[in-house]
Amino acid sequence: MAGNSFGTLFKLTTFGESHGAAIGGVIDGVPANVPLDVDRIQRDLDKRKPGQSSIVTQRKESDTVQLLSGVFEGKTTGAPIGFIIQNDNQKSSDYEHIKDVYRPSHADFTYDKKYGHRDYRGGGRSSARETACRVVAGAVAKQMLEQLGITIHAYVYQIGPLRIPPETPIDFKLIETNPVRCPVPEMATRMEELVKVIRKDGDTIGGAIACVIQGVPIGLGDPVFDKLHADLGKAMLSINAVKGFEYGSGFLSAEMRGSEHNDVILSDGRTKTNFSGGIQGGISNGANIDMRIAFKPVATLMKDQRSIDSVGNAIVVKGKGRHDPCVVPRAVVIVEAMAAIVLLEHYLRSKTTQL
Amino acid sequence: MAGNSFGTLFKLTTFGESHGAAIGGVIDGVPANVPLDVDRIQRDLDKRKPGQSSIVTQRKESDTVQLLSGVFEGKTTGAPIGFIIQNDNQKSSDYEHIKDVYRPSHADFTYDKKYGHRDYRGGGRSSARETACRVVAGAVAKQMLEQLGITIHAYVYQIGPLRIPPETPIDFKLIETNPVRCPVPEMATRMEELVKVIRKDGDTIGGAIACVIQGVPIGLGDPVFDKLHADLGKAMLSINAVKGFEYGSGFLSAEMRGSEHNDVILSDGRTKTNFSGGIQGGISNGANIDMRIAFKPVATLMKDQRSIDSVGNAIVVKGKGRHDPCVVPRAVVIVEAMAAIVLLEHYLRSKTTQL
Amino acid sequence: MAGNSFGTLFKLTTFGESHGAAIGGVIDGVPANVPLDVDRIQRDLDKRKPGQSSIVTQRKESDTVQLLSGVFEGKTTGAPIGFIIQNDNQKSSDYEHIKDVYRPSHADFTYDKKYGHRDYRGGGRSSARETACRVVAGAVAKQMLEQLGITIHAYVYQIGPLRIPPETPIDFKLIETNPVRCPVPEMATRMEELVKVIRKDGDTIGGAIACVIQGVPIGLGDPVFDKLHADLGKAMLSINAVKGFEYGSGFLSAEMRGSEHNDVILSDGRTKTNFSGGIQGGISNGANIDMRIAFKPVATLMKDQRSIDSVGNAIVVKGKGRHDPCVVPRAVVIVEAMAAIVLLEHYLRSKTTQL
Amino acid sequence: MAGNSFGTLFKLTTFGESHGAAIGGVIDGVPANVPLDVDRIQRDLDKRKPGQSSIVTQRKESDTVQLLSGVFEGKTTGAPIGFIIQNDNQKSSDYEHIKDVYRPSHADFTYDKKYGHRDYRGGGRSSARETACRVVAGAVAKQMLEQLGITIHAYVYQIGPLRIPPETPIDFKLIETNPVRCPVPEMATRMEELVKVIRKDGDTIGGAIACVIQGVPIGLGDPVFDKLHADLGKAMLSINAVKGFEYGSGFLSAEMRGSEHNDVILSDGRTKTNFSGGIQGGISNGANIDMRIAFKPVATLMKDQRSIDSVGNAIVVKGKGRHDPCVVPRAVVIVEAMAAIVLLEHYLRSKTTQL
Repeated sequence: MAGNSFGTLFKLTTFGESHGAAIGGVIDGVPANVPLDVDRIQRDLDKRKPGQSSIVTQRKESDTVQLLSGVFEGKTTGAPIGFIIQNDNQKSSDYEHIKDVYRPSHADFTYDKKYGHRDYRGGGRSSARETACRVVAGAVAKQMLEQLGITIHAYVYQIGPLRIPPETPIDFKLIETNPVRCPVPEMATRMEELVKVIRKDGDTIGGAIACVIQGVPIGLGDPVFDKLHADLGKAMLSINAVKGFEYGSGFLSAEMRGSEHNDVILSDGRTKTNFSGGIQGGISNGANIDMRIAFKPVATLMKDQRSIDSVGNAIVVKGKGRHDPCVVPRAVVIVEAMAAIVLLEHYLRSKTTQL
Repeated sequence: MAGNSFGTLFKLTTFGESHGAAIGGVIDGVPANVPLDVDRIQRDLDKRKPGQSSIVTQRKESDTVQLLSGVFEGKTTGAPIGFIIQNDNQKSSDYEHIKDVYRPSHADFTYDKKYGHRDYRGGGRSSARETACRVVAGAVAKQMLEQLGITIHAYVYQIGPLRIPPETPIDFKLIETNPVRCPVPEMATRMEELVKVIRKDGDTIGGAIACVIQGVPIGLGDPVFDKLHADLGKAMLSINAVKGFEYGSGFLSAEMRGSEHNDVILSDGRTKTNFSGGIQGGISNGANIDMRIAFKPVATLMKDQRSIDSVGNAIVVKGKGRHDPCVVPRAVVIVEAMAAIVLLEHYLRSKTTQL
Repeated sequence: MAGNSFGTLFKLTTFGESHGAAIGGVIDGVPANVPLDVDRIQRDLDKRKPGQSSIVTQRKESDTVQLLSGVFEGKTTGAPIGFIIQNDNQKSSDYEHIKDVYRPSHADFTYDKKYGHRDYRGGGRSSARETACRVVAGAVAKQMLEQLGITIHAYVYQIGPLRIPPETPIDFKLIETNPVRCPVPEMATRMEELVKVIRKDGDTIGGAIACVIQGVPIGLGDPVFDKLHADLGKAMLSINAVKGFEYGSGFLSAEMRGSEHNDVILSDGRTKTNFSGGIQGGISNGANIDMRIAFKPVATLMKDQRSIDSVGNAIVVKGKGRHDPCVVPRAVVIVEAMAAIVLLEHYLRSKTTQL
Repeated sequence: MAGNSFGTLFKLTTFGESHGAAIGGVIDGVPANVPLDVDRIQRDLDKRKPGQSSIVTQRKESDTVQLLSGVFEGKTTGAPIGFIIQNDNQKSSDYEHIKDVYRPSHADFTYDKKYGHRDYRGGGRSSARETACRVVAGAVAKQMLEQLGITIHAYVYQIGPLRIPPETPIDFKLIETNPVRCPVPEMATRMEELVKVIRKDGDTIGGAIACVIQGVPIGLGDPVFDKLHADLGKAMLSINAVKGFEYGSGFLSAEMRGSEHNDVILSDGRTKTNFSGGIQGGISNGANIDMRIAFKPVATLMKDQRSIDSVGNAIVVKGKGRHDPCVVPRAVVIVEAMAAIVLLEHYLRSKTTQL
């Protein structure tokens, strides 16, 4: 089946392989008559693009988005926004050596078995390059949400064993002050050092991103299957390399007692604590929505690894190409994008709750 | 919008409030011509029903399912299976006292604000009673999956601070040997004791469930948005009280290096380790799929709690009624049900990958 | 796949076979906080039910709907409305003789081949009995639309060769004054006579229904694939026995010149003529929406017919049971129901066009 | 809401305005591992493109499709096919004069009211230029269907008062022998003459297209809402200018008796007649599927017409630009495309009917 669309009322459909002619997508259900700043979309893309700092992959891709439709005289028309991003730095020859190779913890094996053949260049459709399209749609959604007073901030809170301690106050303005995108400067420095060491080893390392959504109106999210956090969870888990999602008290809640965990409701409708993570019964309660997303270490190493080829021979996969030692700094804007897409979807849905 | 359906090819739509006439649903896309054992559906329901042991709520609900369509002469016809479960033990008077009350960490407040009014009896639509319908659909899906050699086992691995240590061998046959549904007997005993203490305190406690899917064919799951684990994650996060989801290495992956985390592929296509959790690039690789789901403590306490009423007055909510001190023993079969629904969906989808 | 749901924001899912325990459905996406009159739903059902007059089938079915959820204290809650209609007059023995028979122009053959077996009793899932569920959902939608000033009237304009002449003024108040549901009394009388003759012959006859929607706000309908008339067309074509759909100028437009057909726009935004049928570019323009739907003659005859059985033997099918000589009088309310479902869907969608 | 996608398993999403940078789309759910001939896609596009003969609009648009993804080494990969068609002949100045004008029987008025503003150039999103994207997806689907033995032929059977008489034998090989695409040569000649006269008048004329699908396996189509003919009907009604759809006996069935209309089933499972149009109970029975689609006359005239502008002033709209006097010759390939998309969707669905 399909699987390349996300959302119902605000719907992103993407296409494109890592080394094809272009990647791109269609954003459907864009509210009409809203001013759209294309430069801001590009700025978000720039936060995801390779080569932006010394701790990410040194591939050079300009990742310039072209909007092809849906905007007229600076405003959205309600028609779908089609867009493409040319693949201008296709070193497909970098990948000839993996044509018949199944790299460990990559999708080579599963794609080959499922589809009967595959575009092996740069991972083809399984490449995280696809997430650039999500960033475009997310940047559109953010501009809509901003008009509604909803803002979204994601940041790195963990790389390997280094983690921002619980209860540390977070200043979102510090996120973009360092290449790690960690808003706690001294931790950012340590993380940056760690990533450099890891890269020198030809190795990679995992990490985790936190995301906070502020200004959410009460009433977004649907009961039962489309709970707001369930849709956020799916959105995040669909990002390459994500292995876990939690919101509010998360996994810690399994250890807690109800008398500790319950959020006492104050007379203004707000809650004293926010273990609920801004969502009750799947529906936003007006408090901040907070969540955390775990990313595994990048599977491509600059080290030799044992594996098999497509006919089952034992082989050694050699690390080659230009890859990220740690994916989370570039993934911060992807997390924000997916959060924005979900929030706008549910905002639009909420308009249909009553006649 | 809607939000009461789950799935595309195998689709469950549910309805019903805790204290209405009945709950029920429609299962659409049921593969035709498959024998269906109604008793086995009921047995799964019995694992979820109240009053089954001394550590769960003592409400008495028989939770008897009636299939109204879609089965003829013992076999599915391909027509949708409509079903209802009568609400035969409606003590609505138990809830009169919360008519105008917003209970802490319940959905009273968000429902009222979103919908303009609410069925307050027993939580109405936000009640976990709705999950009985998921168990019915899951039990149908399990019988289909069984024919394909796919089996699903969930069990409790954590209650409060008590947790099965990593690497402990698990024997699924032991799950149903104790009321906690923990397959490690000595741990089960300790957990049971803990729950009894918690209940005596009028308090509740969180927990966590693990789920393992075996016999999964290679190739289930779609790339990009409908990754197999993204759909499993949404399925689990949509269950009442769930706060977190992880699969394979999960949150631990954030601490790991690629050289530790990569699953070396052996010459038979299997992998030496399974940090991937049976899924690569969103597609099953034939290894076991494993995941863990965190549940918060039940919000209804047998203790007094401060809160507000619907006009904003400060009040004290008194614990009343018959509630679970810990939800995970009854949720095990719900987790299995949601896993089964997702797996059957993706099995059906996989049939359309090639002509 | 599924196929038993209709709509996205206002979504009906139905289940049930002609001779199973019950038929029913779930209406999801019902706007919250709207008073709902259950008696009016039943009155619509009564217009569809068998045995209501001498020119329809004399089967006695009470067709009493029970709402199981989604309504509290007389108002919708925004939760799905589950409902059932018991099958209280199951003369399954009437159908034993067709167990292995493929009746001409019935779905026996196609169901058997598609699903591998079938519930042959009364046509099983292919029975028009399923449309009772549409009437329930339509009656809910009508009450919502009424609050928006949108009204829907359908009536019989053709039975066999008898047809209301073009340009005849129609008074909707006359529709229910005769069993044919034709608002032109002298034509109604002739139609009724014709149906009686047809029935005496053991034969059946086709017919056609017109439907007019008034008070439609400007702006309902989506461009491109979900044009308002495309969704209306699918809705009507999904009703049993329908063979054609047209709106506005319909098939006559193929004969016309642009200079005749174009609707001159007057200074108040209304149009001089309405060949457009109230829809331009897929979007309502505020004028009345009008359409016409053709129904084939009922396939079950009280005459002998040649056919084959399930193993290919030539047989003679004998007419038996209690059937309609002409389906259109009972189908009028079904047409209205489907129109109402589509209109409410698009009304809700239109609320999401702008922020 | 969205509205720019069609299909579930085989899904087309389109974007683009008549005078934007490009139009294009994404085809998702393309079966993997099937050889794809891009030249054949272009040949179908050439049948739709302007300027192809003297009886269609003389606008020059090359309409060259570029596939951007989803095909590797000549075969589909199962990944979505993204494509664009550049808009290389944008005479936007042709449209400055209609910036504030509501042209009769165009979508100017409804778009403006619905969206708050509009891209007025060439009709923007409401332009039939969008159908080029459908032709691309249809040409992909046709190549898939061909492998399954399913073929689709559409042709013009009516222009204005000229109509191929019933029962005339049709030779599909003659369709492309004349610019009208009517397979009855003497009728084609008369139609061509008529169109030339109409054009000389500055007027336009309606027409109708027939479509026949051969080689359909038994069992495509779903009961109840997604009946095969209901989905075909929606597909056709979503094409610009379509006012009516019928299949099999169509509107004529309203005049017929059951004893005439029923298709006697022969001992080989085929039927003696085919009033059913190849579909019983919404499911294909193996006979040819035939349908007819009515198109209104093009609304843009080379004559003066009275109308209003966006502030309600009475104005005269002057015919300008290069337009079609009759749309059906170019629409033939669009009808085939939509039929192919629906058939492939239902073929894929049919694979999931049984385990």
